Amino acid sequence: MNEHGILHMPDSKYCFPLNANSLVLRLRIDKNDSVDKIEVIHECKYKIQEKQQVTIMEKKYEDHLFSYYEVSLPLTDVRLAYVFRIWEKGKGYYYSEDGLSENYNFSLGYYNFFQLPYINEADVHQEVDWMKEAVFYEIFVDRFYCDEEKKKKDYINLNWGEKPNPKSFAGGDIPGIIEKLDYINALGANALYLTPVFQSISNHKYDISDYHMIDERFGTKEHFKNLVDEAHKRGIRVVLDAVFNHCSELLPQFQDVLENGSKSPYFDWFIIKGEKPEKAILNYEVFAFCEYMPKFNTSNPNVQEFLLDIAVSWIEKYDIDGWRLDVSDEVSHDFWRMFRKKVKAVKRECVIIGENWHDANSFLQGDQYDGIMNYAFTKACLDYYAFEVFDAREFAWKLNHLLMRNTSQVNTMMLNLLDSHDTDRFYTSVNKNKDRMLSAAAVMCMFIGAPCIYYGTEILLEGGYDPDNRRCFDWDESHWDTEFYGMLTNLLGLRKKDVVQNGAINITERDGMLVLSRSLKGEKLVLFTNQSGKTIEIKEEGEILFSNSFQAALDVKEDFIFGSLRTDGFVIIKK
Amino acid sequence: MNEHGILHMPDSKYCFPLNANSLVLRLRIDKNDSVDKIEVIHECKYKIQEKQQVTIMEKKYEDHLFSYYEVSLPLTDVRLAYVFRIWEKGKGYYYSEDGLSENYNFSLGYYNFFQLPYINEADVHQEVDWMKEAVFYEIFVDRFYCDEEKKKKDYINLNWGEKPNPKSFAGGDIPGIIEKLDYINALGANALYLTPVFQSISNHKYDISDYHMIDERFGTKEHFKNLVDEAHKRGIRVVLDAVFNHCSELLPQFQDVLENGSKSPYFDWFIIKGEKPEKAILNYEVFAFCEYMPKFNTSNPNVQEFLLDIAVSWIEKYDIDGWRLDVSDEVSHDFWRMFRKKVKAVKRECVIIGENWHDANSFLQGDQYDGIMNYAFTKACLDYYAFEVFDAREFAWKLNHLLMRNTSQVNTMMLNLLDSHDTDRFYTSVNKNKDRMLSAAAVMCMFIGAPCIYYGTEILLEGGYDPDNRRCFDWDESHWDTEFYGMLTNLLGLRKKDVVQNGAINITERDGMLVLSRSLKGEKLVLFTNQSGKTIEIKEEGEILFSNSFQAALDVKEDFIFGSLRTDGFVIIKK
Repeated sequence: MNEHGILHMPDSKYCFPLNANSLVLRLRIDKNDSVDKIEVIHECKYKIQEKQQVTIMEKKYEDHLFSYYEVSLPLTDVRLAYVFRIWEKGKGYYYSEDGLSENYNFSLGYYNFFQLPYINEADVHQEVDWMKEAVFYEIFVDRFYCDEEKKKKDYINLNWGEKPNPKSFAGGDIPGIIEKLDYINALGANALYLTPVFQSISNHKYDISDYHMIDERFGTKEHFKNLVDEAHKRGIRVVLDAVFNHCSELLPQFQDVLENGSKSPYFDWFIIKGEKPEKAILNYEVFAFCEYMPKFNTSNPNVQEFLLDIAVSWIEKYDIDGWRLDVSDEVSHDFWRMFRKKVKAVKRECVIIGENWHDANSFLQGDQYDGIMNYAFTKACLDYYAFEVFDAREFAWKLNHLLMRNTSQVNTMMLNLLDSHDTDRFYTSVNKNKDRMLSAAAVMCMFIGAPCIYYGTEILLEGGYDPDNRRCFDWDESHWDTEFYGMLTNLLGLRKKDVVQNGAINITERDGMLVLSRSLKGEKLVLFTNQSGKTIEIKEEGEILFSNSFQAALDVKEDFIFGSLRTDGFVIIKK
Repeated sequence: MNEHGILHMPDSKYCFPLNANSLVLRLRIDKNDSVDKIEVIHECKYKIQEKQQVTIMEKKYEDHLFSYYEVSLPLTDVRLAYVFRIWEKGKGYYYSEDGLSENYNFSLGYYNFFQLPYINEADVHQEVDWMKEAVFYEIFVDRFYCDEEKKKKDYINLNWGEKPNPKSFAGGDIPGIIEKLDYINALGANALYLTPVFQSISNHKYDISDYHMIDERFGTKEHFKNLVDEAHKRGIRVVLDAVFNHCSELLPQFQDVLENGSKSPYFDWFIIKGEKPEKAILNYEVFAFCEYMPKFNTSNPNVQEFLLDIAVSWIEKYDIDGWRLDVSDEVSHDFWRMFRKKVKAVKRECVIIGENWHDANSFLQGDQYDGIMNYAFTKACLDYYAFEVFDAREFAWKLNHLLMRNTSQVNTMMLNLLDSHDTDRFYTSVNKNKDRMLSAAAVMCMFIGAPCIYYGTEILLEGGYDPDNRRCFDWDESHWDTEFYGMLTNLLGLRKKDVVQNGAINITERDGMLVLSRSLKGEKLVLFTNQSGKTIEIKEEGEILFSNSFQAALDVKEDFIFGSLRTDGFVIIKK
């Protein structure tokens, strides 16, 4: 046994409550260990000296180094003490806070058993129920659709369809989105993530000068109210972008500081070295190195009040369903804890999604965000489908690894994406290979967490890095690839299935293919995707649910599927 | 290289800020790896694509499985990206969020470098400065000293000095402690930890019926005010016991619930299944299985207000210096976060010490407690000095391991103890072996964190488990072992030294001895303790600071110390 590979951490993603009386335990071991079985020995911490229960753990996940065992325990007494017992070659080894041992003395266990001392409901990460069925559609508002009749157009400097530059305004707006809600609905999305809509002079609006105003180029508050109402009528939820790390230099409070320096009542709203902010020497903190985006001092109670009021007011007045948090990893845990309390107090089902590109475990303990934009998932798909540095086995390992980064609840509330306004478009990354694009979408739709389609993906919009990834949507349907559009719609439709929302997941490699299954109460969906460069023969019991027909040449005979899956192909089989 | 043994976790005890512009990075590897050196490659996350800095990490700790490398980085830009480079046989391997690799592509690093995205001061765990020089003295109030002239004695049922039973009252009180402050001061303690002093019918008072009253058997509020004032005059701080997990059934609010059931306005202050609490079927939550100790529902805002008001009022009105939190692991993180905010707002230097017997990392992120009662340290000392299951090597590994459980700040604010009112007395555990008792005390005084002496240790008070560990202090000085008392005082005096407060620690085994050194600015103290069963020859440069003279037979010749350290012996050498 590789003792160095064993990992368990109490009160963490390795031990977390699901609700008031059940919890999940995980244990990580070196996958090369020849383990017979792993048990958890547990009992109320005040009784474990005298008696113990034994429950077998299930091997559920495997990454390139480790196997992960998991068990969900229902509890009658929520003051749990436990140690693991790992069986190897017929011999049991105990694993406690003091490490691995051949014997374990339960009478001194109070010194070194693992424990979840009590399940306090205040600490349980509550799931936002609708995230299980959510299909997101991200819209970069200026480039989606312009409702031409209802607005002043004097600011527009880009003819719709021409390639944008960083200063382009194409005219997309909120009335335009309202116009297209039925379109979005038909595609199979039921949640919008909108890039910022508040007053700002830029096209992206990540530099906001008034958080209580809808940008006049995008519309009015009435338009926005109408958008949420019309979206809700169609079962579509609306998530806005909270840019709380920084603002625009045009924010009146910063303008006051520019003018009055340290005499301004808003001087401490920002982080300034010296008597007043000076752009030339950048003596104040900003986002990245953008002198026009001063960073908020979120430790200042007045700033906290200002931002939390914004967070709450758009929920209370407009009934929005979530906040995506821009550059959230540069804002304090302390602030996000306050943010969560305020937001959840007014709308428990309001989802909170951080923009953390990296492991965000410390933000995902149930006291801050619900999930993040899952760019690690993006990278895994790129490594397999675009950069081709992964084979199916490595891709499977990475997907398992990502599921083991966080608790089950967080996994369910991840925003899984292939691309966004901050990356190259995935279709461009895979060199306009439609089959790969669909295969990646199939993985995203079968994975745990909510898929997020970046506007235009469905019509194979191309684009490299910013600003090219923010091209105008092409509303000329004659340009669309209806077969691709139809397939993507089918895949997004999978999210309605109970087995995809709630089923157990299993991700492995077989014969060079990635095999991802979800199963629940006897129902099972299995996705096969082949990126091996070779044609792979398949013989499976079941029925074909979807496949990219060109790449999959499969027949069904007497409930058996026979045939071949060419490279870049995928098939989803129902068993 | 054993890839399975490598561990780093961003934004954790493996990566934490010390202040607004410096942080500590740690990397764990299999100690058997033959590593040439380990570097961290780092830069501002917005610049690391173009340029990188390289800093060498230092191997600082070793436990039975792992080596721990550490580096402290001063930062000009606090938005840090980093990857590690591990050199083995002349070849460098990169370690990032994606694991180990031979090459690393910095241009795609934004997907998988490690990061500390920003140091928000609100998230920095601030040290309580006085903890570095603190020497605690824990007093079980009823058994320490009775100031006989000032009180009613009708409740006393134990003659001072007789063995206590669970219901004994011996008469110890707050005026008695005041009387003995000079004694405590002379011993070398400068902080008191008092078991509960609030109104309660029991001798231990962990079942409190009025949190705003000093128990009448212990004295009055005036006595308590006087105690804090007199203690402060002598430079002694006072830490009280906050029993916030549960109360006494005699708390008026619970009495109201007993009487009025679900109609009581206090019904939701507790956790009751049914219409009213019934002791016979224990249909309400309690501490352990004590029906007279109902558990508070700390999710109830009224309970929060009630308890937080208590926490704040004893600081504001009486200027106490800290709270020790009883059964703190069964109370929610959410509550302790509020508790910390309130307490630190009124007195930043008020220390918060949890009673968590197990790994408490999730409570020690800087948002809840400052430290805990370090029972894992207790257990390590027992395993070496009492149970003899550790040799010096294993003891050294365990002490290193404990330091790697938490951040540097938490280590400094640990309450290290050999025993308490909840354990057998250490002197009894080591079979009344004075040398072992002193050796263990020497380790405690040289270790990082504040030592805590349980009252009576200095006069070799004996005692097994509760209630025997709560015997009366014997004030007849003719019974005292003055040599032992003097040695212990010398050891406690070590805490005044800069090198012990701030010096780097190194703990290893050599020739069968535990060797624990602290060093700072050219000064170095080294403790040798021998528990091997054999006499060990020593030859060291330096001067003898202290030793248990019977066990250490050492001579000094021309700045060199020669001689032998018998088993159960220790010596502290100044280099």
